[in-house]
Amino acid sequence: VLQIRTVGIVGVGLIGASLGMALRERRLAERVIGIDVDPQALEIARQRGAIDGTGNIEQSDEIDLMVIAVPPGAVVETAVRAAAGMRAGSLLTDVASTKAAIVHELDERLPPAVRYVGGHPMAGSAGRGAAAADAGLLTGHPFLLTPTDQTDPTALQGMRELAERLGMHPVLLTPEDHDELVAQVSHVPYLVAVAAVNAAAADALPLHGPAFADVARVAGSPAELWVEICRGNRAAITRALAGFRRELDRLEHALTDETSLRAALESSGRRARALYPNEESGTGQGMN
Amino acid sequence: VLQIRTVGIVGVGLIGASLGMALRERRLAERVIGIDVDPQALEIARQRGAIDGTGNIEQSDEIDLMVIAVPPGAVVETAVRAAAGMRAGSLLTDVASTKAAIVHELDERLPPAVRYVGGHPMAGSAGRGAAAADAGLLTGHPFLLTPTDQTDPTALQGMRELAERLGMHPVLLTPEDHDELVAQVSHVPYLVAVAAVNAAAADALPLHGPAFADVARVAGSPAELWVEICRGNRAAITRALAGFRRELDRLEHALTDETSLRAALESSGRRARALYPNEESGTGQGMN
Repeated sequence: VLQIRTVGIVGVGLIGASLGMALRERRLAERVIGIDVDPQALEIARQRGAIDGTGNIEQSDEIDLMVIAVPPGAVVETAVRAAAGMRAGSLLTDVASTKAAIVHELDERLPPAVRYVGGHPMAGSAGRGAAAADAGLLTGHPFLLTPTDQTDPTALQGMRELAERLGMHPVLLTPEDHDELVAQVSHVPYLVAVAAVNAAAADALPLHGPAFADVARVAGSPAELWVEICRGNRAAITRALAGFRRELDRLEHALTDETSLRAALESSGRRARALYPNEESGTGQGMN
Repeated sequence: VLQIRTVGIVGVGLIGASLGMALRERRLAERVIGIDVDPQALEIARQRGAIDGTGNIEQSDEIDLMVIAVPPGAVVETAVRAAAGMRAGSLLTDVASTKAAIVHELDERLPPAVRYVGGHPMAGSAGRGAAAADAGLLTGHPFLLTPTDQTDPTALQGMRELAERLGMHPVLLTPEDHDELVAQVSHVPYLVAVAAVNAAAADALPLHGPAFADVARVAGSPAELWVEICRGNRAAITRALAGFRRELDRLEHALTDETSLRAALESSGRRARALYPNEESGTGQGMN
């Protein structure tokens, strides 16, 4: 059974602070310590009930589980710094959207006494930073965990339990499978949304309806975060983009062949409905 | 000033029934008559307060404004049938997502005494049919109107006023400009969402987060409606797809050039923020 008294969260942004709120509301830790280079973010996180207090990344010997929730490009260096002061047997995880490069570098560089499990909660919102954090943000979403042959089985089991106690669905994947699959359901959909928003003429934008607003919400995600994600998963993103282009080519050819067009649109409808098992209506209509 | 006593709505689906509810709640008509081939849809529309009663498309001499809210492929024949029984000077509009072909055919075929203005309210939801109708569905969205040189100026002014009284933003466009611009902010974004959903591997779908859910909601729109939209706007959709592909190519090349990548992502972020002037946070974060 998982024994976590003190959780440290490095980076109290949207995900880090939401995790802190969920841990505290669900009483999954005795104490949540926020660590951030931005004192204002820590103050907001404290006011919002995401953390009990603040700490220093160099003084981490009281931390049972350290969560590295900084932007993906800073995860490795931050994790190495944090681990240097952690006790033997303590747990370390991260929440980055790309895994293979991070996980393999941390497997090499972290002290063996600190037990690391790569993590990626598939949650988020259109909000930003600790101010937009929400204890319910994580609920019901997948918590991807990416063990390797170096991963301590007890640490992995602990992270699975923690995900479940957070109301999330733990899913175990190799770091490579993670990057390949997440490229398809997150990274490429983001890039495609960006291209759709950038391709629309300036005088087309004010005419948009709710469907384009959904696409724009995806495309409005912070640029710098996504520059780092693209850097961290370029090969898998390129492969997933090729798959997307094949589907788009098929659709475009089907514009002159209604039987094929109908089949492709019905296929996406079925797949979309499968993602909304609890919604009464299932499919959208006239999203415009 | 607009004088509308009786509104007829042919097709009490999501848009038709939502329009009926809004007209009745805002007391913009004395009587709203629902006309539909499906008696169950009429019964739901009546129960939901979208219509005062039902009517027959052949007996339309009491109708001051007839709204053709059937699927786009059926608009022309339905409008011609409805107009045959309408009084001289009465108004007729439609809500189809494609305009040039429909508007020009109706300009030719409608009796000149019936005053037609092409319309397209840019509203919708993930719901379906009269059961999902909502008086607030239209509020705050653009109501695109597509006059031609045959359009009666008083009729056009009446439709502008009606759009405003519905809490919508009337925008006047030629039918051709409508189809070109709506291809960019509605038709191509839908096709791109379909391609993204169809391109994801079956084992990637369960890993999705909220951003992919947004994309899937767009892609889950009913296939048959979109087959008709694609048929009605193929040329403009093909042009808009070419523009989308150019942006996607730029993005893909920029995966190895972070300065260009950052510029493209920041551009979409600015454009997306401009669509959410009233939201505190503006851009999304970690939409995953």
